[in-house]
Amino acid sequence: MPDLSALFAPQHIALLGVSKDPTRDSNAYLRVLVDNGYRGRITVLGAGAYGDPNVIKSVDELPEDVDVVFNMLRPELAESTLVTAAERGAKFGIVFAGGFAEAGVEGAAQQERIVANCNAHGMRIVGPNCMGLFNTWHDTNLSEIDDVLRGPIGVVSQSGNNGLTMVHEARRYGLGLSSFVSFGNQADIPAHAYIKHLGDDPNTKVIAFYLEGLPPGLSEEFIETCREVSQHTPIVGLKGGRGSAGSRAAASHTASLSQAPQAYSALFRQAGIIEVEHLHHLYPAAEALVRCPPLAGDRISVVGSGGGHSTVIADAIESVGLAVPEYPVEVQEDISTRLPFGAPVKNPVDMTGMYLKDATLFASLSQVTLDRAAHDGVVCFGLYGPEHWPATQPDPQLVPTEAGPALGDLQRSHDKPVVFFTVYADQQHDHLVQLREAGIPVYQDAETAAAAMRVLRERGRQLGLRGVDVPPEELASGSPSTTVLDESQSVELLRLRGVPFPFQQVVRSANEARQVVESMTRPAVIKGVLPGVGHKSELGAVKLGITTGDGAAEAVESIVSSVGEQLGIDALKGFLVVEDLGRNRELIVGVQRDDIFGALAVIGAGGVYTEQVKDVAVGVLPLDVAEVERMIDSLQSRPVWRGSRGERQVDLDALTKVVNALHELLRDDESVMSVDLNPVMVTPQGKLYAVDAAIHARAEA
Amino acid sequence: MPDLSALFAPQHIALLGVSKDPTRDSNAYLRVLVDNGYRGRITVLGAGAYGDPNVIKSVDELPEDVDVVFNMLRPELAESTLVTAAERGAKFGIVFAGGFAEAGVEGAAQQERIVANCNAHGMRIVGPNCMGLFNTWHDTNLSEIDDVLRGPIGVVSQSGNNGLTMVHEARRYGLGLSSFVSFGNQADIPAHAYIKHLGDDPNTKVIAFYLEGLPPGLSEEFIETCREVSQHTPIVGLKGGRGSAGSRAAASHTASLSQAPQAYSALFRQAGIIEVEHLHHLYPAAEALVRCPPLAGDRISVVGSGGGHSTVIADAIESVGLAVPEYPVEVQEDISTRLPFGAPVKNPVDMTGMYLKDATLFASLSQVTLDRAAHDGVVCFGLYGPEHWPATQPDPQLVPTEAGPALGDLQRSHDKPVVFFTVYADQQHDHLVQLREAGIPVYQDAETAAAAMRVLRERGRQLGLRGVDVPPEELASGSPSTTVLDESQSVELLRLRGVPFPFQQVVRSANEARQVVESMTRPAVIKGVLPGVGHKSELGAVKLGITTGDGAAEAVESIVSSVGEQLGIDALKGFLVVEDLGRNRELIVGVQRDDIFGALAVIGAGGVYTEQVKDVAVGVLPLDVAEVERMIDSLQSRPVWRGSRGERQVDLDALTKVVNALHELLRDDESVMSVDLNPVMVTPQGKLYAVDAAIHARAEA
Repeated sequence: MPDLSALFAPQHIALLGVSKDPTRDSNAYLRVLVDNGYRGRITVLGAGAYGDPNVIKSVDELPEDVDVVFNMLRPELAESTLVTAAERGAKFGIVFAGGFAEAGVEGAAQQERIVANCNAHGMRIVGPNCMGLFNTWHDTNLSEIDDVLRGPIGVVSQSGNNGLTMVHEARRYGLGLSSFVSFGNQADIPAHAYIKHLGDDPNTKVIAFYLEGLPPGLSEEFIETCREVSQHTPIVGLKGGRGSAGSRAAASHTASLSQAPQAYSALFRQAGIIEVEHLHHLYPAAEALVRCPPLAGDRISVVGSGGGHSTVIADAIESVGLAVPEYPVEVQEDISTRLPFGAPVKNPVDMTGMYLKDATLFASLSQVTLDRAAHDGVVCFGLYGPEHWPATQPDPQLVPTEAGPALGDLQRSHDKPVVFFTVYADQQHDHLVQLREAGIPVYQDAETAAAAMRVLRERGRQLGLRGVDVPPEELASGSPSTTVLDESQSVELLRLRGVPFPFQQVVRSANEARQVVESMTRPAVIKGVLPGVGHKSELGAVKLGITTGDGAAEAVESIVSSVGEQLGIDALKGFLVVEDLGRNRELIVGVQRDDIFGALAVIGAGGVYTEQVKDVAVGVLPLDVAEVERMIDSLQSRPVWRGSRGERQVDLDALTKVVNALHELLRDDESVMSVDLNPVMVTPQGKLYAVDAAIHARAEA
Repeated sequence: MPDLSALFAPQHIALLGVSKDPTRDSNAYLRVLVDNGYRGRITVLGAGAYGDPNVIKSVDELPEDVDVVFNMLRPELAESTLVTAAERGAKFGIVFAGGFAEAGVEGAAQQERIVANCNAHGMRIVGPNCMGLFNTWHDTNLSEIDDVLRGPIGVVSQSGNNGLTMVHEARRYGLGLSSFVSFGNQADIPAHAYIKHLGDDPNTKVIAFYLEGLPPGLSEEFIETCREVSQHTPIVGLKGGRGSAGSRAAASHTASLSQAPQAYSALFRQAGIIEVEHLHHLYPAAEALVRCPPLAGDRISVVGSGGGHSTVIADAIESVGLAVPEYPVEVQEDISTRLPFGAPVKNPVDMTGMYLKDATLFASLSQVTLDRAAHDGVVCFGLYGPEHWPATQPDPQLVPTEAGPALGDLQRSHDKPVVFFTVYADQQHDHLVQLREAGIPVYQDAETAAAAMRVLRERGRQLGLRGVDVPPEELASGSPSTTVLDESQSVELLRLRGVPFPFQQVVRSANEARQVVESMTRPAVIKGVLPGVGHKSELGAVKLGITTGDGAAEAVESIVSSVGEQLGIDALKGFLVVEDLGRNRELIVGVQRDDIFGALAVIGAGGVYTEQVKDVAVGVLPLDVAEVERMIDSLQSRPVWRGSRGERQVDLDALTKVVNALHELLRDDESVMSVDLNPVMVTPQGKLYAVDAAIHARAEA
């Protein structure tokens, strides 16, 4: 692992290929370096138009104490020049130009030669195809990026313009950058070497990392290095090139072969890098990691003003896997006493505009929830710091600005993160500046605020912080006060309405079972008829794969003895012999009475994973075949139903008929609350057979 | 369905409860109405501080031609006042105040009484708990929202502040609003009545809709009305309150019971409303629907400058279900001739800064792809219109601004949508203003640009536009040049390394099969041994549920005859008798050699839906038990493996051992490219049994 100190804090820089024409890029690089106050020596190969550099006419004249050569010569000149510089003792070469591995086979060979020949003399290469680097704390700027705000975020980016994006955001949100390096083709120095360096840099508190791909064979070293850095310095990362076109763009861009996104997610996770999904979440996440303590648990308090915004921020927080749990009643009551009648206080808290009179309410209400409800962090929200105040508040100067200092105090005293969401976050209004100065990040949209909280939670997990576990709240499905009809009754009721079931017959004895099975052409399943009893398999009341009369008789006897032992023999009302269709595609089809919608239909992937994987589509009844088709197409498992691997598409007309048959049952019978068919088997020919049916009826009063 | 013309274009407005104190809200409403140039009559109950309204001291004096009364009186006074206004012939009442149904049972009863008693005299109610309305084309502003830009977007929002968000964005991006109504508790006039009205309004080209919930029993009318409107006027909608806390916030906010998000997604889809997921996508989506033609197919051209941005925009487009297909070689060559050597041209096209010299390149390169590669729409991108140009371009005035007009011409002439993504979109630089004036939306982040394209595609689908179908590009899994080892060989190899399999034995004849099955205590599966042959079930070479010696002999004979007919008897190398573990949880566990990472592991939901549902976690090998646990926890089907419904958690130590055994096989045998166990059955006790194994070896040269 190379020591990069001389790269990020060079005492002597040589710029190779500076034009005297002030409109040329090469000239601008020199100007930026000088204008940004670089305090070391500068040597220029070419013409020195700015400052007072040492100008040389040939690389053979290069002084022997150069730390960094920055190459702007054309690729055909670059090779020999860089190797000569290496021979003359230069420690690092930055190869700004493209046209190397990302451009094709020839470029790749040239890139390989440069690295090998420079390395042979001890020089290490940054790039090629990169945008340079800067270190604001050393006044060193070897990039075309002017006017960088100094601060605690270190940026390691394979792409130059994705790095620029963060420079832009830093300027806007008032938290600057320590160092930046764009490492391009990563031909020599691997990405994790920069991460290691910034991890050791006292001016860098958080590292923001953009990666398109690793070169082969480095993943173990990458994981080890980054994991170590992440013990003390958080790393937040984005993997670019996740789809096929994205990875094609990344490949032509930086000559790295991008793979399935899951592989890089695994790499990041194992390396202790907190992954974000979007470029526009990278800077905000880094900002949160600088400004806020980590989030120790999943319970978020949402405190602010405005019902619609409270709704979208709660949605956003839940959609990143955090929770917005209701406060205990006594906490709700406490908050109520501080707000006008009717203001929502359960979590979210909506202060209904009261911050216009007292902006410390954001902090004082939040504090109640942290102290008394044991929540782990706070998202505040409201139309605070706007460009135009509502007409009801004509003068922004009259609106108190104390939200910032008060929330900053709260965050510090409780060591729990507090962030702010307002659609006016792009403004430079004093209200927002004060929030930021107090250490509260201010985000413009709910999703970014939620993403920042998720990143803070990941950091908390990395540090082993554990809050109270929040059990996922279950979606209510059906009314709790229903009873389930006996399965054979359900089947008969539905068969009469045209729902197709495989052959089945209720029998009373082993002998009847024997006769029925001997008359069948396919294997049978035999189940005990046990009204009101679930989990029949676990009771030993379901026997599969029965092909002979003897087998049938044995199955019945085995059910009798196993059920008899566990429930008593009276529970058993007979035996259901059902044709076994074998292994097939399985749908779930259901309808449910609904207060708002009248009735809803559910169609989805059925069978054993239904409840967990939840690959289901919902429709508002009544449905026609076009709508049923759209529902099928919206499933993740769509190709299964559209037909693949020699199986035909599910019969959509038949499926529509089944759904409508269930809907009619709801309409005709007020007592029926919901009907589920799970599974409905879909044969290789696309035919449907309902195999299990459950009718839920309103429980009698 | 009420006719709302007099509500949105009233000739006479009465404001009830105006204070003479200019710092009070009620006063501000009057001021906004007057300042925005309302041209009708104004009557004020209270004090008229602005304009020259007709002031009355009692509602009994209310003139009889009032179209709209706007109530700002306290709830306890509102009821009798509104009913009197209704008796005096007022057509609409806007109830601004909260404290009604959203605040509890009493408020709900009062709300119901107001609606019933006003309706009895023909007056309809907007709200309560709303933020009023405006119609910029009629200079009518009954809201506290000043300074609204006039334009083509109509906003129907259950929440006031989510509506304000769009007013803010309209001002920023230069495309204004036609009308706005915040309908709050929706106690009387249903949401779709406003949609219907704006659908008929010639000044409204697109409707942006924010909904928290429908009242019971209206879904059929809602679907019918909106579907009709959407035939001619696109509607884009956001459902707020999708998680449990979000819906709790929505409920206390507007007294509507929010349900599972899927139900509302179904409602929107069936109603022809194009759903967006985030509040910050609502205005941009509406803007796209105004400025751009719909997208007729899925093929997007990505043309701009900057490798990193090209990567993230391609990722974003693919993640919304659109495609970024590679251009034909001759198109790539054509584009190459217009750009410097090495510039990426496959799609995305990266012009590597050339727009700084010629900004019409955005349009001319895009045109090549539309004309010659038959793509359906374009996303352009680049650091165009920045606050700070890079130092290499010192003077923004020198950078050509022709991108806007040229792209506008392209969009019009080709009737295909063109949008622009630049991180500087929040700037008001002339470059960006010209893009917008030419009809090109400019978005600040890749996800918003992609979301806008998805919305344009949905609109295209609604209008029945069909582009060329793009088959989803498959992720390469394993190398194509591998051979699959015979299953029984694979099993033996893996069993030796400690991978647990159920009992199994290879037999040669029906008689041997009979003996083996008779010695077994559980049912058996018998499979033909067919080296190199897949899809054995379809060949009739797999027989399940065999419990007797006779059954075993029959199964063997049936496999012989069925395989013999289809492949010839020589293909059959014997029969595998395997213990049948019954129905169990099924995992897939696999390892794969990888150029970049060395080796990757996959753990996920196995069995029949593996390929389609893709609920899998990836890890970089080697893995310890903590990492295997994290992988299991990252699965959607996590609760299945963690144990539920009486089943115990999967044995994580055993699972780690299995993964590492597969990894060792990869390390020890250079020829092995990947190993898949699918399914690995997980018994109710959490024990693992691999049931099928496939070892892929490097094909010999």
